Amino acid sequence: MRAIVMYGASDVRVEDVRDPRIIHSTDAIVSVTRACICGSDLWPYQEMEHSDVGRVMGHEAIGLVESVGADVRTVKAGDLVVMPFAWSDGTCEFCREGLQTSCPHGGFFGNEEIPGAQAEAVRVPLADGTLYALPVRKDDALLPSLLTLSDVMGTGHHAAVAAKVGPGKTVAVVGDGAVGLCGVIAAKRLGAEQIIIMGHHEDRIALAKDFGATDVVSERGEAAIERVRELTRSLGVHSVLECVGSEQAMTTAVNITRAGGAVGRVGVPHYAGIPAPETSFYNNITISGGPAPVRAYIDELLPDVLEGRIEPGRVFDRTTNIDGVPDGYRSMNERKSIKVMIEF
Amino acid sequence: MRAIVMYGASDVRVEDVRDPRIIHSTDAIVSVTRACICGSDLWPYQEMEHSDVGRVMGHEAIGLVESVGADVRTVKAGDLVVMPFAWSDGTCEFCREGLQTSCPHGGFFGNEEIPGAQAEAVRVPLADGTLYALPVRKDDALLPSLLTLSDVMGTGHHAAVAAKVGPGKTVAVVGDGAVGLCGVIAAKRLGAEQIIIMGHHEDRIALAKDFGATDVVSERGEAAIERVRELTRSLGVHSVLECVGSEQAMTTAVNITRAGGAVGRVGVPHYAGIPAPETSFYNNITISGGPAPVRAYIDELLPDVLEGRIEPGRVFDRTTNIDGVPDGYRSMNERKSIKVMIEF
Repeated sequence: MRAIVMYGASDVRVEDVRDPRIIHSTDAIVSVTRACICGSDLWPYQEMEHSDVGRVMGHEAIGLVESVGADVRTVKAGDLVVMPFAWSDGTCEFCREGLQTSCPHGGFFGNEEIPGAQAEAVRVPLADGTLYALPVRKDDALLPSLLTLSDVMGTGHHAAVAAKVGPGKTVAVVGDGAVGLCGVIAAKRLGAEQIIIMGHHEDRIALAKDFGATDVVSERGEAAIERVRELTRSLGVHSVLECVGSEQAMTTAVNITRAGGAVGRVGVPHYAGIPAPETSFYNNITISGGPAPVRAYIDELLPDVLEGRIEPGRVFDRTTNIDGVPDGYRSMNERKSIKVMIEF
Repeated sequence: MRAIVMYGASDVRVEDVRDPRIIHSTDAIVSVTRACICGSDLWPYQEMEHSDVGRVMGHEAIGLVESVGADVRTVKAGDLVVMPFAWSDGTCEFCREGLQTSCPHGGFFGNEEIPGAQAEAVRVPLADGTLYALPVRKDDALLPSLLTLSDVMGTGHHAAVAAKVGPGKTVAVVGDGAVGLCGVIAAKRLGAEQIIIMGHHEDRIALAKDFGATDVVSERGEAAIERVRELTRSLGVHSVLECVGSEQAMTTAVNITRAGGAVGRVGVPHYAGIPAPETSFYNNITISGGPAPVRAYIDELLPDVLEGRIEPGRVFDRTTNIDGVPDGYRSMNERKSIKVMIEF
């Protein structure tokens, strides 16, 4: 089959690789219908050291179950399924608590051990706990939005939940990437009254407004903090969705949070210590978040996607077949595309 | 009147100072019955630069209202009251939300502007929002426990609330000072199943066990983390009460928290960034806490004190009159006393 293999920074190739096959009785093989490139794929795209074996990329997919191992019970060949970015057993105490990303038997797709989903097919371990069967047909127009349930929409929702967004709350979203944009959707969906999008890409800001952002802050650093304070009676916002992961983004996040408020961080941390420990302390600010247990959120988010109340699929501003994926990486890395969808 | 004045590190004196008087119509003058020395008073005791004017210390007290300003409505002369360590208006949006320590019109006792309560009398600004009238007599045997509602018991409770302690949860308390010990009481009171006290002073550990600690970890650093993991099926605890504020304490706290769990920090931070940002991220750990809004907690904690279900007053292992206070500071600073109560 054909797959996207990364061999090092900026070295993404379309290659013929061996077809996946059932290894454990709890596996499923999924024929990928839609996959995509994630903002987090850009970290190895920028930094990965050369590898001779390479790494089949991708951790977000929708596809058709092709075959299942002898012990798989909840999905069967022919089902259209969404594949969350983490696989999990669905039965351990963490999975039962809704924290599938901490499943001791689980793991993540798209590394050197577990090939990813930017491929014509993917082996999904622990299929019963991982896959979610969708009540739609393969060519449904909702597929882009359903695909976001594998990561970005669930991740934006997680940021909002961690930041304790609720009815009437004031919210700021730090970062206008696909996750930040889904964070706007999530904040609106959970009843936020004011939603400030912080970013400076015109097309993304426009989409954020469509999704429900009420204010835009394009400044950075101190000026951005000042601007948010102006918009919030000098109080700051109840909830900050930190969707970047840089030290500056976290510093901004803490400094624009209202006393007693919360930061929900989903940006992978690129800082030595969580900044502004005294500000967050004296203001009783909660800092929460991490990798989103998107599997846990599908039940809640799916009806809103199916009934058209939310349209997270609009974060895909470019669609390609597998041959266009290397160029898709380039385009996302240069911030020319928000998020690239791959059709098989 | 006589008061405790600190002029610099290790320089604590008993002095005659001017009697406090009503300045604003919202003030009350309280004749202090019981006060105490706080662990946080030891920071200036160790570090304060010499001051010619000095600083009347103390932010925890019980006393009798002596007089009130013309606009005070909720307390009157003769009432026995508890004075939380922060004063607050009781009417702003933060006070109404129960976060009195962020009241924009409030402040803290015992600094150069607002003289403290290690004195025969104290001026209490915004008396209606600040003071809490107690339904007991001045010589009640419950006074030591009631006095802890002004700070340490409310602070231990805040740590437990921030760390999301609840029925059946596993808890670790980092630090065996008066706040940590009250944290044990709070964790037990909120239904924790396992309470691990982390400390190494025999007398304090014994008291922690009396208060409900089920396990003791006396190791430090990596060995302490290892020991907590042994006690918790390698998972860590749901809730950590961080009652120290050092970098090592916070590092330990994050590393012993179970995935999806929470750290409630009430130790004033002495670190540049909250440590272990990646561990806390990948494990979806919540970090919360700050100065405790103890005024908000009195309604909840008072009945348990009055009916003898909790005895936080046992953290006072030494009582003195005002003349013995300088020695009390020495004793606490040398960790010979847990907490010193002052009787007037």
